Amino acid sequence: MREWAERIRRGDRRKIARAISWIENGDERKEDLLEAIYPYTGNAYLVGVTGSPGAGKSSLVDRLIGLLREEGMSVGVIAVDPTSPFTGGALLGDRVRMTRHALDEKVFIRSMGTRGSLGGLARATKEAVRVLDAAGTDVVFIETVGVGQSEIEIMHMADTVALILTPGSGDAVQVFKAGIMETADLFVINKAELDGVRKLVRDVEEMLHLAKGNEDWMPPIVKASSKEGLGIDQLWRELGRHRDYLRHSGQWRIRRLSRLRREVREVMEGQLRRRLAEKMTDPAFLRDLDAVQSREKAPHRVARDWLDTLFRGEGGKEE
Amino acid sequence: MREWAERIRRGDRRKIARAISWIENGDERKEDLLEAIYPYTGNAYLVGVTGSPGAGKSSLVDRLIGLLREEGMSVGVIAVDPTSPFTGGALLGDRVRMTRHALDEKVFIRSMGTRGSLGGLARATKEAVRVLDAAGTDVVFIETVGVGQSEIEIMHMADTVALILTPGSGDAVQVFKAGIMETADLFVINKAELDGVRKLVRDVEEMLHLAKGNEDWMPPIVKASSKEGLGIDQLWRELGRHRDYLRHSGQWRIRRLSRLRREVREVMEGQLRRRLAEKMTDPAFLRDLDAVQSREKAPHRVARDWLDTLFRGEGGKEE
Repeated sequence: MREWAERIRRGDRRKIARAISWIENGDERKEDLLEAIYPYTGNAYLVGVTGSPGAGKSSLVDRLIGLLREEGMSVGVIAVDPTSPFTGGALLGDRVRMTRHALDEKVFIRSMGTRGSLGGLARATKEAVRVLDAAGTDVVFIETVGVGQSEIEIMHMADTVALILTPGSGDAVQVFKAGIMETADLFVINKAELDGVRKLVRDVEEMLHLAKGNEDWMPPIVKASSKEGLGIDQLWRELGRHRDYLRHSGQWRIRRLSRLRREVREVMEGQLRRRLAEKMTDPAFLRDLDAVQSREKAPHRVARDWLDTLFRGEGGKEE
Repeated sequence: MREWAERIRRGDRRKIARAISWIENGDERKEDLLEAIYPYTGNAYLVGVTGSPGAGKSSLVDRLIGLLREEGMSVGVIAVDPTSPFTGGALLGDRVRMTRHALDEKVFIRSMGTRGSLGGLARATKEAVRVLDAAGTDVVFIETVGVGQSEIEIMHMADTVALILTPGSGDAVQVFKAGIMETADLFVINKAELDGVRKLVRDVEEMLHLAKGNEDWMPPIVKASSKEGLGIDQLWRELGRHRDYLRHSGQWRIRRLSRLRREVREVMEGQLRRRLAEKMTDPAFLRDLDAVQSREKAPHRVARDWLDTLFRGEGGKEE
């Protein structure tokens, strides 16, 4: 595993791909691998890119990759495909991924689909990003379709979140309602060649004023056209400006610490759920469940009793 | 508390309202109350009503209430208002609730907003429904705006889920994509006076064929107009037919048992999270977190170590 971690650190693409597959499939060995690569992480700049389907996230990221490659930086992209929690299949799949950089050794692009729960997707994304981070990738883009609890969670892992809007789509109001506004550090008005740009800029400014009027960092609004390749330089400059802001204000360290804290908690919760699930196949538990259905015991009572058998000491009925 | 539970059982509206407020505010006393009323529950027929904003859920439910009251049944409505996870306020609020039945003793209507997490809302809704159930309510409608993880969770608590669509809104495809299709036992095409009904029916039929082609219960499609009061009888008949199907097929018992199982698990998980949160303020834990940030320890390692200190026996490092 050490050997493998070392090869990831040196940027071995096949090992990287394999590691992410383990993560995606929930392979048990991933835990040791993630532990082995952990010392190499923490250096990549993580940029979340979100916006509704068709907003042009992929092509915008594609343009950014071009720019960053010119400056000699290595780039990673993790594109998250949200899917139905029921079917498990990628209904929004079939996305045409950026092929322009397919042969570039310094660009790593990967789509992730849902396996298991949505919480699972957020965690898997986080872990995949960590693999790219360990591989010495300078900038990792995390791409998701905007709205929804799990996307918001995914955005929490980025240093900077760029929200892509397009004119005439009515996006701005939706975004505001869904609480996405609050997560965004930067707005991109893409397809700026279309009508309605001015109105959209005004709408966003108004809502920013409402939502962020009292904050240190006022998210800039960048007009871009991924089709024409316009505004990409400015977008990268504004990303850099936000990164500098994070470092100078101390937010960089604070955000990352709170992310790690959240992550440790999530891992613990995941473990707890697994142990709980095991308990719940216990015959004595199933008898209690029958008692709940026949109204002899209340659900809360049964839950409490079983928790007491799980936990050491505290609450201390057994002592 | 016994006295209170008894008054809820007899349908005391003020006590019912108070109990739901406790639930909504997360008042600690609710636990005992829920335990005390639990023996009186399990008799109400729970109908989930979902659909996008403007689909006419409230007015359809309003019509159904009229019908059920004519037949002498008592009715409850819990309307769930989803809100931004950031602002905490009810952005979709301001809904004009059904005033027609405001003075009817046998009709209980209540809106629930988000307090705390979305998971919290699902749980609170479940508990509020249980209060109405204990009060001897014959039919409880649970109303939510369609899409999203927490709404799907809420729909899981219903015996029958009715999904409301309207012509020309493009709803059908959205619904299919979001995986709501699979939860629906019955489709209502509301505003059937509008154009495009035939196309919508055809779309839904096609998608049903795809999603439910192999299942025992093929969801019926009911055309209705809440405005004109049309199709309400048929809607109620189809609801009754689904209820009969559930009972005869044994699904009634199976679904309810799996719901209780889920509920017990949720209560346990909630408790676990609370105990975890306490642990995470421990100075030794904070020191470990610093070690994670400085890359001396991996997050998974810290999580595992702390879990071992929490749990009795199993894994058994300390033994």
